Amino acid sequence: MINGLSGTMMDYQLTLTPIMKRAMQLYPNKEIRTKFGDTMHKVTYAESYRRCGQLAQALKKLGIEDGDRVGTFAWNTYRHHELYFGVPCMGAVVHTLNLRLPADQLIFIINHAEDKVIFVDDTLIKLLEPLAPQLKTVKHYIVMTHGELPETSLPNVHSYEELLAAESGDYGWPEIDENAAAAMCYTSGTTGHPKGVLYSHRAIYLHTMMVSLTDAMGLAEPDILMPVVPMFHAMAWGLVYAGTMVGCTLIYPGPHMQGADLAGLIQDEKITVTAGVPTLWLGLLQVLEAGDYNISSLQRMPVGGSAAPRSMIKAYKEKFGVDILHAWGMTEMTPVGTLSAIKSHMADWSDEAKLDLRAKQGITPPGVEMRIMDVNGEELPWDGEAMGELQVRGPAVTADYYKDERSADSFTEDGWFRTGDVSSIDSEGYMQIVDRTKDLVKSGGEWISTVELENAIMGHEDVMEAAVIAIPHPKWQERPLACVVVSDGADKAQVKAGIYDLLSKEFAKWQLPDDIEFIAEVPKTSVGKFDKKVLRKQYEGYQIAETE
Amino acid sequence: MINGLSGTMMDYQLTLTPIMKRAMQLYPNKEIRTKFGDTMHKVTYAESYRRCGQLAQALKKLGIEDGDRVGTFAWNTYRHHELYFGVPCMGAVVHTLNLRLPADQLIFIINHAEDKVIFVDDTLIKLLEPLAPQLKTVKHYIVMTHGELPETSLPNVHSYEELLAAESGDYGWPEIDENAAAAMCYTSGTTGHPKGVLYSHRAIYLHTMMVSLTDAMGLAEPDILMPVVPMFHAMAWGLVYAGTMVGCTLIYPGPHMQGADLAGLIQDEKITVTAGVPTLWLGLLQVLEAGDYNISSLQRMPVGGSAAPRSMIKAYKEKFGVDILHAWGMTEMTPVGTLSAIKSHMADWSDEAKLDLRAKQGITPPGVEMRIMDVNGEELPWDGEAMGELQVRGPAVTADYYKDERSADSFTEDGWFRTGDVSSIDSEGYMQIVDRTKDLVKSGGEWISTVELENAIMGHEDVMEAAVIAIPHPKWQERPLACVVVSDGADKAQVKAGIYDLLSKEFAKWQLPDDIEFIAEVPKTSVGKFDKKVLRKQYEGYQIAETE
Repeated sequence: MINGLSGTMMDYQLTLTPIMKRAMQLYPNKEIRTKFGDTMHKVTYAESYRRCGQLAQALKKLGIEDGDRVGTFAWNTYRHHELYFGVPCMGAVVHTLNLRLPADQLIFIINHAEDKVIFVDDTLIKLLEPLAPQLKTVKHYIVMTHGELPETSLPNVHSYEELLAAESGDYGWPEIDENAAAAMCYTSGTTGHPKGVLYSHRAIYLHTMMVSLTDAMGLAEPDILMPVVPMFHAMAWGLVYAGTMVGCTLIYPGPHMQGADLAGLIQDEKITVTAGVPTLWLGLLQVLEAGDYNISSLQRMPVGGSAAPRSMIKAYKEKFGVDILHAWGMTEMTPVGTLSAIKSHMADWSDEAKLDLRAKQGITPPGVEMRIMDVNGEELPWDGEAMGELQVRGPAVTADYYKDERSADSFTEDGWFRTGDVSSIDSEGYMQIVDRTKDLVKSGGEWISTVELENAIMGHEDVMEAAVIAIPHPKWQERPLACVVVSDGADKAQVKAGIYDLLSKEFAKWQLPDDIEFIAEVPKTSVGKFDKKVLRKQYEGYQIAETE
Repeated sequence: MINGLSGTMMDYQLTLTPIMKRAMQLYPNKEIRTKFGDTMHKVTYAESYRRCGQLAQALKKLGIEDGDRVGTFAWNTYRHHELYFGVPCMGAVVHTLNLRLPADQLIFIINHAEDKVIFVDDTLIKLLEPLAPQLKTVKHYIVMTHGELPETSLPNVHSYEELLAAESGDYGWPEIDENAAAAMCYTSGTTGHPKGVLYSHRAIYLHTMMVSLTDAMGLAEPDILMPVVPMFHAMAWGLVYAGTMVGCTLIYPGPHMQGADLAGLIQDEKITVTAGVPTLWLGLLQVLEAGDYNISSLQRMPVGGSAAPRSMIKAYKEKFGVDILHAWGMTEMTPVGTLSAIKSHMADWSDEAKLDLRAKQGITPPGVEMRIMDVNGEELPWDGEAMGELQVRGPAVTADYYKDERSADSFTEDGWFRTGDVSSIDSEGYMQIVDRTKDLVKSGGEWISTVELENAIMGHEDVMEAAVIAIPHPKWQERPLACVVVSDGADKAQVKAGIYDLLSKEFAKWQLPDDIEFIAEVPKTSVGKFDKKVLRKQYEGYQIAETE
């Protein structure tokens, strides 16, 4: 690494503390609002800053030391916001626990991370109680509630508000090394035990700058931002930090995130930007189409977590004038990797051509580098045709998993992260996920993308959800099977014929699913993605008729 | 510095190389255009990237090693752009020489920095030739010209284009430590020899992200950006790097930057953002008011270097719908420190109230921290009233001057940079420069701000320029004297009475200038700021009548 002459610049550490302080100093009266049932709770950035100080003081008293992991088991609320800042800025590590994981995975994660305390929403206590006897390192449980502490079997229980009330909030925030861990998250999309990532202050700081840029999420002080993506999922895509840094009004939806709840919040709070997974927005779309909501304030909607169907992007644009900003990322990337926006020279493209582009996962913001590699480790061209394993690097990409021997498999010798996604990249840098390496259907030496088939099938007006999986096949090795959820009252035989009609316009005959199964619901993972592991298990013995 | 547990993130260095590569990969066909006389020269980002590679290869052949200083003596052109990237990305340091400095200062700077080579525009050779015999370290002069090498007395002369033409451009860009120096600039606003600042790759990278943010300069791919601020002045305020990172079309004005040149470029190139010092825009304003230009493409205009008169901000807004984004910075800050934009809750303020706010220097973008201190080193409140020395810190602020013993005076014990400006900060974080510490008039134990007087005087319709200086006074220690330039044909007696009328509405009697002197022009420094040193010298013996 070259350094012939050092710069004369300050050795200023990139931490979350100046981000928290900035909102307090420059936007003291702007609000963080949280929906609890029928009421909107409001706290200003100046008040939130003081509460973060109180939280830090309380954590000190509970014996939390530098680098200790502090678990959170909570919805998107202003208290979770305080944990996002107060914990890392006092030198500890905020560890967000995914409350949708099965008990055995949660127990593994908490023990593996050695969480010393867990902050839990009152409404989630019942989920946590059965786990507590097996949690080896947790010394205290702090319950976040407006009222009295509820009855609970949890040991060493404290009230969040009482702990804070006992402190002044005049806290001397420490100087922190930018490479120190600020936050922790486990990724559960893998086989075997979940794997942990420790986000450094530096990584989050840089990710915060990056996603805020005009051509990324374009966050600015006038925005009214609602992170619907859970704060227990991949750091809520960085929206908590970015929204605070630029001084947005922040709206947290609390525990209720059904379509009608969200439509009401967008209308009443005049939300300009909101973000979450496609499933949520498909639900919202139905509510909006059926009901009478005014969502004219809404400008942009970053959507990620799984591929956003082209038909959904089109419906939001045509019916509601909302630009869905298709995004892709991974827990390992803090998490944003790409965003798909139209470039200026494409302004006069046809609507359909623009839609094709928006349906891609997009281009990297500054701070992410990507490449696609063939099976021999040779770099592939950016021609929109070549498909290879997507690899990334950057200051907000993990280089390791926390205390996990499987790490080595995930990184190349020259230090890039292997995403496990198969992608193509076009000549202007737009990346398109073809599939997860493990989800591709390998048929007769060729690859069939299940994602492309699903997107096409979901374009059928009577299809609610579609998941395509590989079924073992004696001759072709694997063949695709489509599992489809139809809307109430639809004629399945007609839908089936309609789907094959649709598909045959876009795909070669050998790429078509061998059959279509109608199911009640596609099983989902804890973060709302299609859980193909479950589907594959379900159809383990499925017999596909031998075709020619 | 706390680090109880390190993050697992990549040790990815923040350098200019990924910024340069990003434009080549994502915006290969977008253009960098330069005005040379009657022609617009065009080069794409993809071509520019290759030329940067050729430049790096040529520098290697000339013997340039890691950390070596490479001088530039040039206008804003695509070749200067190549030097901004090619030199630091190959591991050397691009040292921009201010061609408006007097010969003795230039000689001092080049020898002090130990520049090994100097790149010079053909039109500037005659300025450089007389210096060459005294330049001790310069081994080669590379002339940037479209045609044949001109006759010159410079030794070891090469043609820029010939050097590049001899190389392939397939350059293996090295891994560079983010703390390595990328660029160098001397600040000449001080007494004694100029002082040098070495910008690290990291500082520039972070500054680039910071100024691009929506609430800062809001740069985005669709922007057509013209940096009028010279590339030999404070890294052209970061616009070269920011414009490239986000993929703007870049327009370089070349050597001609008079009002009519700029008006023509804004109209013909449909420029959306341009930036420079107030003097330039006062000149442009006259041209626009007199002529028939269509500048409707222009959206934003960051203006800094010295205070932008309120009347100018008003004129651009009312007559042309252009938002002047008042900015403040210093060579020591890479250089942006604050920008003055309206916050959303101010949207329904009166035009006059908004103008008052825009006339302040503004709020810090993320990455800059500021405070004001009294003479005893106590921090002053942000109440819009208290005035104290402005101090700053951040990852893009210098901690030192290059090989200069005077450094210590410029930094506090706790590591903040003392700007030498006296400022107030209001409760929402808007900073207003009251004066340079050394320019304040100290009258009878009170301070009088020369900047505030100047701004008020320049509000008079017949006043072109106004500079207020302190004159020694037997009783009051110092008293203000106003030096005013009026427009052709104005009646000086009437103007004088008018100015006093204006001032008495805003200022107390003891704050008014004791006299008004009419002059032909305010002397300027090499970067276009009012040179009060010269004025003070001119009025050294000035007698102020003893007032009560």
